[in-house]
Amino acid sequence: MTAYDDLMAFQRQTEALARVAGRLGWDQETVMPRGATGQRAEEMGAMESVLHARRTDPRVADWLAAIDPDTLDAAGRANLRHIRRDHDRAVKVPADLAAEIARVTSLSQGIWAEARRTEDFDAFAPTLRQVLDLRRREAAALAGDGDLYDALLDDYEPGATGAGIEALFGALRPRLVALREAVLGAEKRPPALAGHYDEAAQLQLAREMAETFGYDFHRGRLDRAVHPFSSGSGSDVRITTRTVAAEPFNCLYSTIHETGHACYELGIDDAHALTPLGQGVSLGVHESQSRIYENQLGRSRAFTGYLFGRMQAMFGDLGIADADAFYATVNRVAPGYIRTEADEVHYNLHILLRFDLERALLSGDLPVADLPDAWNTRFEKDFGVRVDRPSHGCLQDVHWSVGLIGYFPTYTLGNVYAGCLLQAMKQAVPDLDAQLARGDTAAATGWLRDNLQRHGGLRAPRATIAHACGFEPNEEPLLDYLETKFRSLYDL
Amino acid sequence: MTAYDDLMAFQRQTEALARVAGRLGWDQETVMPRGATGQRAEEMGAMESVLHARRTDPRVADWLAAIDPDTLDAAGRANLRHIRRDHDRAVKVPADLAAEIARVTSLSQGIWAEARRTEDFDAFAPTLRQVLDLRRREAAALAGDGDLYDALLDDYEPGATGAGIEALFGALRPRLVALREAVLGAEKRPPALAGHYDEAAQLQLAREMAETFGYDFHRGRLDRAVHPFSSGSGSDVRITTRTVAAEPFNCLYSTIHETGHACYELGIDDAHALTPLGQGVSLGVHESQSRIYENQLGRSRAFTGYLFGRMQAMFGDLGIADADAFYATVNRVAPGYIRTEADEVHYNLHILLRFDLERALLSGDLPVADLPDAWNTRFEKDFGVRVDRPSHGCLQDVHWSVGLIGYFPTYTLGNVYAGCLLQAMKQAVPDLDAQLARGDTAAATGWLRDNLQRHGGLRAPRATIAHACGFEPNEEPLLDYLETKFRSLYDL
Repeated sequence: MTAYDDLMAFQRQTEALARVAGRLGWDQETVMPRGATGQRAEEMGAMESVLHARRTDPRVADWLAAIDPDTLDAAGRANLRHIRRDHDRAVKVPADLAAEIARVTSLSQGIWAEARRTEDFDAFAPTLRQVLDLRRREAAALAGDGDLYDALLDDYEPGATGAGIEALFGALRPRLVALREAVLGAEKRPPALAGHYDEAAQLQLAREMAETFGYDFHRGRLDRAVHPFSSGSGSDVRITTRTVAAEPFNCLYSTIHETGHACYELGIDDAHALTPLGQGVSLGVHESQSRIYENQLGRSRAFTGYLFGRMQAMFGDLGIADADAFYATVNRVAPGYIRTEADEVHYNLHILLRFDLERALLSGDLPVADLPDAWNTRFEKDFGVRVDRPSHGCLQDVHWSVGLIGYFPTYTLGNVYAGCLLQAMKQAVPDLDAQLARGDTAAATGWLRDNLQRHGGLRAPRATIAHACGFEPNEEPLLDYLETKFRSLYDL
Repeated sequence: MTAYDDLMAFQRQTEALARVAGRLGWDQETVMPRGATGQRAEEMGAMESVLHARRTDPRVADWLAAIDPDTLDAAGRANLRHIRRDHDRAVKVPADLAAEIARVTSLSQGIWAEARRTEDFDAFAPTLRQVLDLRRREAAALAGDGDLYDALLDDYEPGATGAGIEALFGALRPRLVALREAVLGAEKRPPALAGHYDEAAQLQLAREMAETFGYDFHRGRLDRAVHPFSSGSGSDVRITTRTVAAEPFNCLYSTIHETGHACYELGIDDAHALTPLGQGVSLGVHESQSRIYENQLGRSRAFTGYLFGRMQAMFGDLGIADADAFYATVNRVAPGYIRTEADEVHYNLHILLRFDLERALLSGDLPVADLPDAWNTRFEKDFGVRVDRPSHGCLQDVHWSVGLIGYFPTYTLGNVYAGCLLQAMKQAVPDLDAQLARGDTAAATGWLRDNLQRHGGLRAPRATIAHACGFEPNEEPLLDYLETKFRSLYDL
């Protein structure tokens, strides 16, 4: 056994334990008895302690020091990078700070939920201050002389920086605002879907859509949960969805979205199983897969034509004249307060707002007490609507309450990456629309699997996209895609 | 922090991790995608490694040495006993032997299942030899100068010995054989239940029966699985059942049985949560709870009268004249090859046979090659029927294939304990039958909870029963119960 073999044997167990810890989350959101909440917190805490002890194990540093990377192949060197990075990050954060963050954020979510329910920002403000202070201390421990926000962002999107995101979002913003104004000023006003749709039938069609997009039920399952998510890596990747009688698109498109996440995990080469390469490389790249499945493919004119037929077969008459009208309804643009319900034109504007505010919160430029005003002012400027209550404004998302600072920008990064991938995919699959029109996603998802998914964590996030696309990722393809799609849809 | 506090804080995390490992088993048998089998084996192996490392952690020995038991209360001293016992057992078994046993027994179950399917004992014999050899080596490491079988039995039933079981079973055997012969020679022949019963309705009634026997769905759930089981401790204890259209009693009584196991775990005082006292103290005591719920209560004349009404309400006419006839059908005695399908009269004879054979296998007195003949000869002697195929004989149970030697006798111990508990319960609840006749089990299960279940691992197994009953456990109450019940039922 070489030092590398020893390290990888140790890491293999760590990865297996991380899978177990992750599955506790799935269990909690789907099947756990409600009365088990307290015990579950202790179980998750114990698993986190075990994982933290392994990540900071002094033997890992010894093995890393003993290995000559030049004796390894590309996968071996990539494994070393991931393990070194995780180890370095873990040892920099004092154990008592990590424990305090875990303790506080396990409670803060409940305080946020209650404040949102009662529309009482002041009830949440002290908690948000505490969470921000703890994450600021963690960022300081991680950053050394570097930027605090970058240190946190790097956890979700390795290699990304606040300055880089700022430049990217600066390039997106004017064209998104212009497109939004043009669409909302158009004469055309597609109607929303009307009526109620049997929820069991929604689930059945959601299951069919997951299969249509290549989800492997032999290595996964679909359950209901309050919030849709994908969970797991390797050969056990489970997705969830929800149903609302009046909103079948919510169920169907959240399922296709989670199918994108799951197919990324399931598409990684078996050779990387239970190694650091055996999971999606970053949140941004992950979101590129969920978004391209959901939007660039799933909300395309070609695929919605197929879906129109499947929905009619399942539900009968939808009160929609033809496939063109159905396409317009699926892609209907309407301003709204809530990020998770936003259409493709509005979605990134929600993210740009959050990015600017969370950077200012972390740096202290924006005091917590001023957050509602800052949010509402910015929202009115970007969306033309005054926020009417905190749950429609700065209390709508769970993220900040559990300390997820630096997480939001990965959603828009994912959209930018999805735009790039669609452009490259269209080159590789010239008859893509003809295939999607008959509900055949095999070439599209196969191209993603072969050029991106199967490599897992082999390359850094941006390099993963660049490798698949053949060009450096940038915002142009997404903007071109959105402008072309929605100008055409709204006869502009 | 005293050494005891440190030890218990460490142990609390170990207990939480053991809960997580246990839930992996539940997940595998109920919801796991079939394609995840390989990864799951690595996950369970990693959890076992973590748990083994904690059980053998040198700090545990240091803490144990530093604690003066006289400074502790009864619960504290009991915790020390459990922790010392687990630590001593774990350090005695060489790590490479433990790993080899884990490896071999993870494969041997599949070999057994295939041999059973093809009725080919010879295909299983080499594996059984290997498993026996490994367990013999483990027993030698544990036993020192002591008895090998005792060393293994002690894992399932602390304090029990092969000699003690032999004496107990020797006292049971003649009266069980005599009762069996008398019943089978009776003129009365109650018919089996006929017809087919909707499986969804069976599940619904099973759920109702679990609630009737006090199962708390707030801290548990009922799912389907190939083999019914109860899983978990503390505030998350889940049960499973199965349905066969022609066999509603199978679904209903396996559910009541598992409800007994689950109520034991759920009934333990919260003060013992995530300590060594926070789970059932032995397999025998556990089985006393499942058996008394299923048989002494669930198959009583009083309760079956209530169930008759509930089944008629759910399924309509059962083709059975009245509650007396229903009682006779529920308790119908018929010889059969299969232990898990045996009636109360035959059940313990199945166990007595296995106990004698597994002791002889472990000692080497019975060579593996001679097992089928030895089984079939003994079976014909005890049951009056010639075994017609291995799956009806020595290949029917999974236990030996996965190295569970010393496990079988705990089933009959549980029946003996259930007999004692019924006798004491009848003293404490004089109108028990009147309550059961209206489907009210609250006093019966409440008595068990107050006198036995809530104490968890506070006392040793026999002492747990003695404390609840007010007398030393012995075989007389079970034999009296069986003779009275079945002589009356068969007009003898």
